[in-house]
Amino acid sequence: MSAEALLAAMVRVESAWLDALVASGLAPSAAATDLAPLVTADDLPHIAAAAEGSGNPVVPLVGLLRSRAPQPAATWLHRGLTSQDVLDTALMLALRDALERLIGELRAQVTALARLAAQHADTPMVGRTLTQHAVPTTFGAVAAGWLDGLVDAADLVLDARSLLPVQLGGAVGTFSAATELAGLRGHDDPQGTSADLVADTAVALGLRELRPWHTSRATVTRTSDALVTCTDAWGHISTDVATLARTEIGELAEPTAEGRGGSSTMPHKNNPVLSVLVRRAALGAPGLAATLHVASAASGDQRPDGAWHVEWSTLHLLGRRAVVAASQTTELLTGLHVDAERMRTTLDTSAESVLAERRSIAGLLDATASADPTTYLGFSEDLIAGAVERARTFLEENE
Amino acid sequence: MSAEALLAAMVRVESAWLDALVASGLAPSAAATDLAPLVTADDLPHIAAAAEGSGNPVVPLVGLLRSRAPQPAATWLHRGLTSQDVLDTALMLALRDALERLIGELRAQVTALARLAAQHADTPMVGRTLTQHAVPTTFGAVAAGWLDGLVDAADLVLDARSLLPVQLGGAVGTFSAATELAGLRGHDDPQGTSADLVADTAVALGLRELRPWHTSRATVTRTSDALVTCTDAWGHISTDVATLARTEIGELAEPTAEGRGGSSTMPHKNNPVLSVLVRRAALGAPGLAATLHVASAASGDQRPDGAWHVEWSTLHLLGRRAVVAASQTTELLTGLHVDAERMRTTLDTSAESVLAERRSIAGLLDATASADPTTYLGFSEDLIAGAVERARTFLEENE
Amino acid sequence: MSAEALLAAMVRVESAWLDALVASGLAPSAAATDLAPLVTADDLPHIAAAAEGSGNPVVPLVGLLRSRAPQPAATWLHRGLTSQDVLDTALMLALRDALERLIGELRAQVTALARLAAQHADTPMVGRTLTQHAVPTTFGAVAAGWLDGLVDAADLVLDARSLLPVQLGGAVGTFSAATELAGLRGHDDPQGTSADLVADTAVALGLRELRPWHTSRATVTRTSDALVTCTDAWGHISTDVATLARTEIGELAEPTAEGRGGSSTMPHKNNPVLSVLVRRAALGAPGLAATLHVASAASGDQRPDGAWHVEWSTLHLLGRRAVVAASQTTELLTGLHVDAERMRTTLDTSAESVLAERRSIAGLLDATASADPTTYLGFSEDLIAGAVERARTFLEENE
Amino acid sequence: MSAEALLAAMVRVESAWLDALVASGLAPSAAATDLAPLVTADDLPHIAAAAEGSGNPVVPLVGLLRSRAPQPAATWLHRGLTSQDVLDTALMLALRDALERLIGELRAQVTALARLAAQHADTPMVGRTLTQHAVPTTFGAVAAGWLDGLVDAADLVLDARSLLPVQLGGAVGTFSAATELAGLRGHDDPQGTSADLVADTAVALGLRELRPWHTSRATVTRTSDALVTCTDAWGHISTDVATLARTEIGELAEPTAEGRGGSSTMPHKNNPVLSVLVRRAALGAPGLAATLHVASAASGDQRPDGAWHVEWSTLHLLGRRAVVAASQTTELLTGLHVDAERMRTTLDTSAESVLAERRSIAGLLDATASADPTTYLGFSEDLIAGAVERARTFLEENE
Repeated sequence: MSAEALLAAMVRVESAWLDALVASGLAPSAAATDLAPLVTADDLPHIAAAAEGSGNPVVPLVGLLRSRAPQPAATWLHRGLTSQDVLDTALMLALRDALERLIGELRAQVTALARLAAQHADTPMVGRTLTQHAVPTTFGAVAAGWLDGLVDAADLVLDARSLLPVQLGGAVGTFSAATELAGLRGHDDPQGTSADLVADTAVALGLRELRPWHTSRATVTRTSDALVTCTDAWGHISTDVATLARTEIGELAEPTAEGRGGSSTMPHKNNPVLSVLVRRAALGAPGLAATLHVASAASGDQRPDGAWHVEWSTLHLLGRRAVVAASQTTELLTGLHVDAERMRTTLDTSAESVLAERRSIAGLLDATASADPTTYLGFSEDLIAGAVERARTFLEENE
Repeated sequence: MSAEALLAAMVRVESAWLDALVASGLAPSAAATDLAPLVTADDLPHIAAAAEGSGNPVVPLVGLLRSRAPQPAATWLHRGLTSQDVLDTALMLALRDALERLIGELRAQVTALARLAAQHADTPMVGRTLTQHAVPTTFGAVAAGWLDGLVDAADLVLDARSLLPVQLGGAVGTFSAATELAGLRGHDDPQGTSADLVADTAVALGLRELRPWHTSRATVTRTSDALVTCTDAWGHISTDVATLARTEIGELAEPTAEGRGGSSTMPHKNNPVLSVLVRRAALGAPGLAATLHVASAASGDQRPDGAWHVEWSTLHLLGRRAVVAASQTTELLTGLHVDAERMRTTLDTSAESVLAERRSIAGLLDATASADPTTYLGFSEDLIAGAVERARTFLEENE
Repeated sequence: MSAEALLAAMVRVESAWLDALVASGLAPSAAATDLAPLVTADDLPHIAAAAEGSGNPVVPLVGLLRSRAPQPAATWLHRGLTSQDVLDTALMLALRDALERLIGELRAQVTALARLAAQHADTPMVGRTLTQHAVPTTFGAVAAGWLDGLVDAADLVLDARSLLPVQLGGAVGTFSAATELAGLRGHDDPQGTSADLVADTAVALGLRELRPWHTSRATVTRTSDALVTCTDAWGHISTDVATLARTEIGELAEPTAEGRGGSSTMPHKNNPVLSVLVRRAALGAPGLAATLHVASAASGDQRPDGAWHVEWSTLHLLGRRAVVAASQTTELLTGLHVDAERMRTTLDTSAESVLAERRSIAGLLDATASADPTTYLGFSEDLIAGAVERARTFLEENE
Repeated sequence: MSAEALLAAMVRVESAWLDALVASGLAPSAAATDLAPLVTADDLPHIAAAAEGSGNPVVPLVGLLRSRAPQPAATWLHRGLTSQDVLDTALMLALRDALERLIGELRAQVTALARLAAQHADTPMVGRTLTQHAVPTTFGAVAAGWLDGLVDAADLVLDARSLLPVQLGGAVGTFSAATELAGLRGHDDPQGTSADLVADTAVALGLRELRPWHTSRATVTRTSDALVTCTDAWGHISTDVATLARTEIGELAEPTAEGRGGSSTMPHKNNPVLSVLVRRAALGAPGLAATLHVASAASGDQRPDGAWHVEWSTLHLLGRRAVVAASQTTELLTGLHVDAERMRTTLDTSAESVLAERRSIAGLLDATASADPTTYLGFSEDLIAGAVERARTFLEENE
């Protein structure tokens, strides 16, 4: 989600629209031109500076395109669109790329976690509640819990991905200019022509056809809520890893890599850097999503006076943080070291207290409780099997 | 979503669980007891005070139930559960009630808006972007935009409603105690018995069966995101109404009612109080949802050390604000006054400037632009028809 | 910060204002009446219900007062005020009470922590960074860090307390009605009379005199930022306590009390409930403060259309959470168990690795590093002395 | 607040520290070297990439410096510091630059607004509450309200600026390495030497001397709260300007400039772009500050596991948004067009209703109310004088 990528996406939108205008007969066939080569990353500084004057980057972009495109393309490009159409649709394209990268990472994570869960179905460890040893569990059950959280998030990402729409509607969302053009061109059903333009552009860009949503921003918030649900799930995992990697606990360790986890002053340190950086993203994402909801709620008129404008950099930061955290989580999960022996030692040391519940239960029936903590694992086996099965279905359905 | 309702919901959970224990043979049949009469609203102060000591209200509630229930119910109730099971499941019941009230209100709102949109498909008004007159639109098109936002939100609410699960898993989510009991009772498949307990309790409470989600909180955030998407949609509508009801604009007016909109000092005022109060909810909801995401991301161990605890009052406030705002929005939309004449006057006054785009378009074809702003409405008619059709489908599918 | 207290505060404001009107000669002396007995907690349901119609609780409150006060008080009360004057000023009174409770708690906490820091200046423990053992420190140094955070927060609370103002300005903040009355009564300097009314009312209520701030809400955000800085400081402390009280670490333990820290199902548990509940407040406060900033930024006109209205319940919840967390933190700090022996054992076990830095340093000078971790404590002694001195100054200056 | 500036600031911190080491005799005098030329913007990509491995950019930066500096500087640089010392102190330098730019802008804004307030003390306009015409006021009074909000914010910025500290403390905040070095070098008072290093470095960098605050983050939140209070104040102003610049109201207009306010499709538009962009910043800032508070509350150990790491990009975005919005607000206020005639016309049109309060007041004394709305301005004159006086004092005290 770089500035350069967003610029390229905006040009793609203008190109797809120009193609649609030509195809519909609203623009002359001679206007068909590939706009992509007309603007490069070198234009970014000019566009960024001018955007502060016009209030958005589309105005200067269209200026550049008009000054560089041959005629009649220069005359016809952007006709019927408003700045928001171009920027919103380009943001959807950028989000699509981000979501697709996330889906790839989520698949890798689900695969890794399903393997860990199955592999450690019989790896007993102490369960902890409110920071204290509570009752035995297995690392497989813990991993199954992480897995369910991941698949919950992945479901939302898949939904959000499938729903990303074009934004096309012209100045106030009525397609006034395009419809007028169609009328002047003598089309029988000018409104239908406008609808066709939307359909064609949506197909060309691989986005969903949708009525103008200039001030109804559920698409943006649904997508950002999906992103935050991902960072939540990763935050949950990395919070657990950071705890279980504590020097005193040492039940998990992060994968090591050249140059990772070192300290600028303490040569012995091996910091759980991946977890730390993933937690960074998880702590920072909710505030960004809240801003997008505030912006959605404050939308007014046929284009809002600031609420729309705050979305760009907010979505950009949120998307970037999510993509980075996704790849870190994948690395974390695919290389996670599980110290089953240490888990067992900790459990044995606490066996007396973590079997207190078991003794209460036995007492109800005047039975004697077994003192082996590895046989007090409840329905963890079935639970893991259920989570792994769900993961498998998810992977199969979303290859 | 009152404290009293939450208490009653917790008792319902304990009752359903006790029933399931008896049905499965884990508890003796003599333990079957109706727990509902044992606790009343009078117990709230004691439970609230004791909750600050134990960290949650379930510990004192179970204490009360044990002291008041006959034997053997007193011995058997709550066996196999953990506090979080009871509180989370009770919160799901409370959320269900809230969501169902919202669904009712959303249906009423969608009905009212679909009517307004259709009725005003030919009511021209000026479209405004960045606070300025831009291009003509119709009030029907504006209402159609509101309508799409409402149905987007309603879709999320329906999803969230259908997914509300029980939370059942015991101390660390392995159902250790229940499974142990089943083993001691000689059940063939103790893990299966635990699964049956979940299934029975879920059916009894009308919630979805689900693996324990003590630290995977996507259910909570998905529901709160749906609530915030509602307040966003209402915020968008009320922002527009507040603007269009400005003294200088006067194109919309709120329904009047005895005692509403008055001022403590200015006898002539008729304030758009519904919009103001709905905007209140819309501005306040995103911060609450952000807190729930932070809590989800900070979940650790088999029960978090604070992240779970912040959910209760946050969800409670969010749910209450949403329910109140829902009913205010319904009242607003069902009684909204639309001053079509004023809209027309404003449009005519601005006709010259709001047809500038039309003249540009005509210029492209060397045509002459019509000066009648009421014939420059683009595909607003089709757009309205599409939104109304979607609303109709929504209403039919969710009767 | 209960609803009842807020009601009483609103009546105090009306009373102080009525007194000022009489004192200035704007109202007849016969209007002097004690309004306090006219309204009780029994009126709360009526006022709350009517507030949803009028948009705020002052309109129905004034109605009640007018219907119950004798003449001419009934006629003269509230003259010159607007609803926002009464509610804002009452909120300042409620905040004053909350801040004063906080100041008392903060004094107790600072006292307890200064004692702990001094007492444990020579209690070595392992320092941890990014969850890993790093270099030795002392518990005194850790406590000194907590202490600095508390005094930072306390400074903001004291500032906020000293700046709490009255809100008085009438309908649009110009004191139109009061100034007009003064003119009609023949006052020489009607504007001066209005200023006198503000001064008198401020003195009577013990608040600061200030120009109307109906839409300039820095007072609200400054106060809420101070509250959040408190919950941050407490969150930091409780995060550390929760970690150091982990079963595997066990260097700190919470004070025990009858009925605290128990589990509904695990008889052996002693949960760090105070830390858990304090962390609850710390996670929930920032979202509320963010809402108040959004409301401040969205303030418009001479009274905002929703931004003001969201403040009440938000401030209420924030204040309540802060007051509860304050008392829990005091209890935590005054009864904290420090296990110096366990700290020492942990440190000794890690001595080799936590002295790696020391060996690097010695290597620079070709010296041999001591292997005693208790002599590698840097300037922790001076650091503690500095923090304790600052605490002492704070306590002396704010007795 | 660019990445390049932050890199330069980190090098400045390392340089100042190396100088202090040499001055104190801990490092040999031959180690004195200017580090500034050793690293350039070309190193940014390498440092950014490596930062994801080490968890922060200081580890790779120190690596580069060591590989490029001559001996013995290469050996001695960074000795005694930890990564967080360098990054936190560099952030304080970056924040200082941002705050100083803000102070310059705030001075310009206060100057402009004081002039507007004084100039329009007699410019009557209608006061609006809850979007409706209420009672007359003057534009001077409105500007005075904006002015008070600005000075409130500026006070916090000045406080925050004066309190920006160095962060120096070594691995766990005890200055273990530096103090050890001082001991090995035979210093009488090694702890005193460490204190001197802090003092020297603070003086060299122009920051405040302070005890290590690695996990007590009130400095960060106080600064970010000041930034948000600025964006709140600007948000309030721009919300009012956007409203008053509405086509139907037209009482204010933004300064025009080549290329500003244009539309990509509507040639007649003159959008209030400055207000729109300032509102963008105001809506986005609170979520960022909330993240910083959450991070502060979640700080643990002697260096947090993620809570610290989320600060950098959050502060960076907040600072950048504030600096941009500051300059836009200055431009807005220094060039604001006030249409006094239009204000008067609007007021006259509503005279009957906005004098309803006046008639009530007159009725109390059986007097006749004047029908001239320009003589019902309450104590607005005195209020303006007070705000202007405060502004003057502020400007004088902070030249």
